[in-house]
Amino acid sequence: MLKTKLLHPEILGILGMAGHGSQVLIADGNYPFLTGSPETAEKVFLNLMPGMVKVTDVLAALIEAIPIEAATVMVPDDGAEQAIFDEFRKLLSAGPELTKIGRFPFYDQARLSDTALVIATGEQRIYANLLLTIGVVPPEK
Amino acid sequence: MLKTKLLHPEILGILGMAGHGSQVLIADGNYPFLTGSPETAEKVFLNLMPGMVKVTDVLAALIEAIPIEAATVMVPDDGAEQAIFDEFRKLLSAGPELTKIGRFPFYDQARLSDTALVIATGEQRIYANLLLTIGVVPPEK
Amino acid sequence: MLKTKLLHPEILGILGMAGHGSQVLIADGNYPFLTGSPETAEKVFLNLMPGMVKVTDVLAALIEAIPIEAATVMVPDDGAEQAIFDEFRKLLSAGPELTKIGRFPFYDQARLSDTALVIATGEQRIYANLLLTIGVVPPEK
Amino acid sequence: MLKTKLLHPEILGILGMAGHGSQVLIADGNYPFLTGSPETAEKVFLNLMPGMVKVTDVLAALIEAIPIEAATVMVPDDGAEQAIFDEFRKLLSAGPELTKIGRFPFYDQARLSDTALVIATGEQRIYANLLLTIGVVPPEK
Amino acid sequence: MLKTKLLHPEILGILGMAGHGSQVLIADGNYPFLTGSPETAEKVFLNLMPGMVKVTDVLAALIEAIPIEAATVMVPDDGAEQAIFDEFRKLLSAGPELTKIGRFPFYDQARLSDTALVIATGEQRIYANLLLTIGVVPPEK
Amino acid sequence: MLKTKLLHPEILGILGMAGHGSQVLIADGNYPFLTGSPETAEKVFLNLMPGMVKVTDVLAALIEAIPIEAATVMVPDDGAEQAIFDEFRKLLSAGPELTKIGRFPFYDQARLSDTALVIATGEQRIYANLLLTIGVVPPEK
Amino acid sequence: MLKTKLLHPEILGILGMAGHGSQVLIADGNYPFLTGSPETAEKVFLNLMPGMVKVTDVLAALIEAIPIEAATVMVPDDGAEQAIFDEFRKLLSAGPELTKIGRFPFYDQARLSDTALVIATGEQRIYANLLLTIGVVPPEK
Amino acid sequence: MLKTKLLHPEILGILGMAGHGSQVLIADGNYPFLTGSPETAEKVFLNLMPGMVKVTDVLAALIEAIPIEAATVMVPDDGAEQAIFDEFRKLLSAGPELTKIGRFPFYDQARLSDTALVIATGEQRIYANLLLTIGVVPPEK
Amino acid sequence: MLKTKLLHPEILGILGMAGHGSQVLIADGNYPFLTGSPETAEKVFLNLMPGMVKVTDVLAALIEAIPIEAATVMVPDDGAEQAIFDEFRKLLSAGPELTKIGRFPFYDQARLSDTALVIATGEQRIYANLLLTIGVVPPEK
Amino acid sequence: MLKTKLLHPEILGILGMAGHGSQVLIADGNYPFLTGSPETAEKVFLNLMPGMVKVTDVLAALIEAIPIEAATVMVPDDGAEQAIFDEFRKLLSAGPELTKIGRFPFYDQARLSDTALVIATGEQRIYANLLLTIGVVPPEK
Repeated sequence: MLKTKLLHPEILGILGMAGHGSQVLIADGNYPFLTGSPETAEKVFLNLMPGMVKVTDVLAALIEAIPIEAATVMVPDDGAEQAIFDEFRKLLSAGPELTKIGRFPFYDQARLSDTALVIATGEQRIYANLLLTIGVVPPEK
Repeated sequence: MLKTKLLHPEILGILGMAGHGSQVLIADGNYPFLTGSPETAEKVFLNLMPGMVKVTDVLAALIEAIPIEAATVMVPDDGAEQAIFDEFRKLLSAGPELTKIGRFPFYDQARLSDTALVIATGEQRIYANLLLTIGVVPPEK
Repeated sequence: MLKTKLLHPEILGILGMAGHGSQVLIADGNYPFLTGSPETAEKVFLNLMPGMVKVTDVLAALIEAIPIEAATVMVPDDGAEQAIFDEFRKLLSAGPELTKIGRFPFYDQARLSDTALVIATGEQRIYANLLLTIGVVPPEK
Repeated sequence: MLKTKLLHPEILGILGMAGHGSQVLIADGNYPFLTGSPETAEKVFLNLMPGMVKVTDVLAALIEAIPIEAATVMVPDDGAEQAIFDEFRKLLSAGPELTKIGRFPFYDQARLSDTALVIATGEQRIYANLLLTIGVVPPEK
Repeated sequence: MLKTKLLHPEILGILGMAGHGSQVLIADGNYPFLTGSPETAEKVFLNLMPGMVKVTDVLAALIEAIPIEAATVMVPDDGAEQAIFDEFRKLLSAGPELTKIGRFPFYDQARLSDTALVIATGEQRIYANLLLTIGVVPPEK
Repeated sequence: MLKTKLLHPEILGILGMAGHGSQVLIADGNYPFLTGSPETAEKVFLNLMPGMVKVTDVLAALIEAIPIEAATVMVPDDGAEQAIFDEFRKLLSAGPELTKIGRFPFYDQARLSDTALVIATGEQRIYANLLLTIGVVPPEK
Repeated sequence: MLKTKLLHPEILGILGMAGHGSQVLIADGNYPFLTGSPETAEKVFLNLMPGMVKVTDVLAALIEAIPIEAATVMVPDDGAEQAIFDEFRKLLSAGPELTKIGRFPFYDQARLSDTALVIATGEQRIYANLLLTIGVVPPEK
Repeated sequence: MLKTKLLHPEILGILGMAGHGSQVLIADGNYPFLTGSPETAEKVFLNLMPGMVKVTDVLAALIEAIPIEAATVMVPDDGAEQAIFDEFRKLLSAGPELTKIGRFPFYDQARLSDTALVIATGEQRIYANLLLTIGVVPPEK
Repeated sequence: MLKTKLLHPEILGILGMAGHGSQVLIADGNYPFLTGSPETAEKVFLNLMPGMVKVTDVLAALIEAIPIEAATVMVPDDGAEQAIFDEFRKLLSAGPELTKIGRFPFYDQARLSDTALVIATGEQRIYANLLLTIGVVPPEK
Repeated sequence: MLKTKLLHPEILGILGMAGHGSQVLIADGNYPFLTGSPETAEKVFLNLMPGMVKVTDVLAALIEAIPIEAATVMVPDDGAEQAIFDEFRKLLSAGPELTKIGRFPFYDQARLSDTALVIATGEQRIYANLLLTIGVVPPEK
């Protein structure tokens, strides 16, 4: 067992191959994991059962492991704020603002070849997808 | 043996990787399974012999497992209704209306990268193909 | 998203290929997932972070999907009961008694070719591994 | 669509690579398909849902395609005849007698490297497995 | 050994995955099997030695197995009839007329993703390639 | 198209990787190609239809390509000479005598890891299998 | 060991899958074997050490095995004849004239999907690449 | 770029799949990486050039990531202490004692199926191999 | 252990398949290794930990092994010189000048199919990526 | 093109993964490359045509790249010295003596899992196989 907070071997492996500008999709349980992402992206399935694991669980683990430069969320046609967004903001704390885009533009962005990793969750809430862009780890002084 | 109604391991596996907007093709015995679908789609062969299994058998099993948002059927040039369509409607009950399109537009839609799964049947009736679009499982209250 | 309780595509896929007498290992976070199981077993990683997911979470999901005929746990040399065992018993309810064996006999049993699936968890408790034997779904009357 | 009675591409493919003395297992829904057969055997999944397809459906299709030299069934410890055995005999008609063996000897025989193909069914009846040995097609006169 | 006339496991396998509108190329010995067909097409090599097997041998075997809706042949720039064409017509009997096209248009058509299968022969005659389009098996009455 | 007599790409490829003491099995149509040979052996299928190609056709092509040091045939329990053996002798001419062994010893020898290649034919005659051992090409003077 | 002049198993294998119009690149030691050819082309490495093997060695071996319809060489910007070209002409004897093209057009032609095979040599001379087009083996009379 | 000290994606991936009792070999530059370890072990090559990276560099990175329960070193026939051993002891600090074994017993232990990972270094010193056994991460209180 | 300065098996393997005009990317620790390069490029991970190995370490090893014709570096929007550039110039000595381009044009050039190899380092400095173009080894006199 | 004497990418790659005690077989043209070596060994084919390349060519290239600790040759039953052995001795110069063993013991040693690499040549001389054992590169002072 690793001593790090993030333990998942496949997620660690792909994050170690990704970098500045690579995207990571944490998808809710209704997301089309296979058809809504590029073929080249690694898919990791954490959708054990409804509500487990949650998108916010994955975000909490990733925040320990990678710098986050941007974060995009999917919103309904009316652009309505979703309850889960504030949980995202709290976890991202001093991190980037959430960028809101509609369903099909979100799919388009997630299907870019910049997406290195798709993590499927059992999140039951709708419009609960989060598309992260990895930032830069500054050199140690 | 699983305790669920849908037992097929490869179908369950791909459906668990698909989601809102992904397509599933249940193809009759004359459909060009390989060349009439995207390379990326998983192909499952249930065409044991003529008449077994039927497209309606597969639909009955899938209805237990996934929400269905849209259903498209292939029609001849004269747009003629086929006997099997009413069996589809009965099984879909409160589900979506059937959308009718011609042979080549049907191939075009089935070849979209949204198609995650092609299930080959031994259905002998012609114009008996059914292209489903997966919907959303609403959050439990 | 599937309508079943167990959502995980790879777990569903392998369980649908397993059957009476096949073994499923739900391993705690310190288990040697790769080297303590047969090469032929499918490995599924749900070890997101310490404590997530738990062995009991996985058991709760599997119980919905498969009949369980036997359940083996790993115990220290003194055979000491572990706190998690009662959680197992509660979840298995009318199911099989727990069989207790030591660390190396447990590895030997887990490495049998009967083990079809290894599910890695982030369970932090030690001696929290559970090796299930699948039973029979009786014919419907 | 093929003009033959047996339509299934993977079954046809493997049967065309098998021959005199090769074994084909038609397994009921509770059989451990993966762990109760050799790794080298091709596995074909026709277990769509409980009761579909049946072991007898597969036997009916195979009889058209290959000569059958021997047929083995699994019996309980008391060697009790099962209702499905007479259906097997009727389909095999002038073919071989059924050889009855117990559960674990049956697994041992099915795991021989002579088994080229395992066909998983949704057969709900228990003790409904059938292990065929392929015979010889005599030269045309 | 199968009891059918067509015995070849890989040809049977692919034909069982093809269907209405899929193409099958039976290529003479000089055809560029690899570079004159789509990467996705299965290639089967029956070119044992010059003159064995012949394109007409393969056609004779396929006619037993699939319905044929169209047949295209390659002709020289002057569109000259080739001796083998009448052998094709005799074998196709009540089947489709031969469509004649030049060398490069033939390559273009053979390279369409509709081509599921390329069968290489040792046919020594030149301009002896045959590109078949699979038709429909009508439902039994 | 190659200018050699033996044209088959996969057979040429494997023969070029084999050598002194490697075995090549030319199997009649009833031989268990998959289960009666080692997993490591390449399998080439030339069994287009009953009687095509014949074991003697393959032998005629191989004789042009490799030196043959030994040749083993399968005989019935009574060791009876088969009509095809004299065809083998004529083709092998000044080559090795035929060694006759029974069905199961023949399988044992064919399953040795020395077997590099299995060529499946549509030969209809029974007891028509031929197991060749490759010899040495002497240095040019 | 094969009795043919060309012995190389992978070269023989690909040439047997190529045909009229397929290209074969014999590349000098400085050619970008991987990035200057299509991904689909088979790469064979004969670049043991500087000067071994030479492009002319490979040409001498190929001439025995395939008909050659066209031959293209790479020339510097000034189109200067290279010493190795006369060696090519001598080996090709009654074969095709050499077509001379510049470095980048040569790469463009070598990257066409018609290129079935790239043979890397240790040829030290520069501008010593040879791109062959396979011709037709005429039928035996 | 990950925020952890150990950055290597493949090492992180395999360590996340290993656990209590799994072995990790950090091999010096002369070790037979491929033939001195099990086929199933993942091999990671960090042998950029002589002296880079060193075995002690890898140990320093691993110590941050996994608990170490045992450490074995290879010694000459005379069991002589090597200069690098004290560097190992310093890095392992409160960790396990070094166990010294001879060259061939070391190979035997490294080839056990418990070895999940082999890390090749450019370490120039001889007898500088280190075989680690992973320990347990105790549950957080 | 090889006697050359460059020891790394995968780097040596790909460099031996590359040639004049092929590109090699030595990437700093924040580079998006997977998504900022072509799928066809081999990826080698030497990013053990922050600062190990460095981009300059890799350059020092490569200079021994291949001729370098061009070298491109990534610069910030203001085109600012980076401290590491002088280290590159010193190592390249009589080699090519550094070409400076911005972040996104650099990604575009690195994603060309000419890139045969991506070497990931743990280099902590930012704007420390180096994209090399391989030159020509002149013939020995 | 590499600047080293040994240029072959696959040979360099495997030698970089081998080490002290690993074996490399340089086989003459009649050796059973596939069946006379372990499945795990990499096979490299340099058998372009009879006499090219020679076993001594390969030895000359390898000597530049790896230390050689032992060298075994195959001899006839009478143990007769072969003309090529003195060429081996000259190339090995201050290296190991040749160990002579018979045909079948040679196969047994070549099939050990210590053999990492088999290099097939077109060497025409018989009894011209050479089995090398890699030695140690001593640390630089």
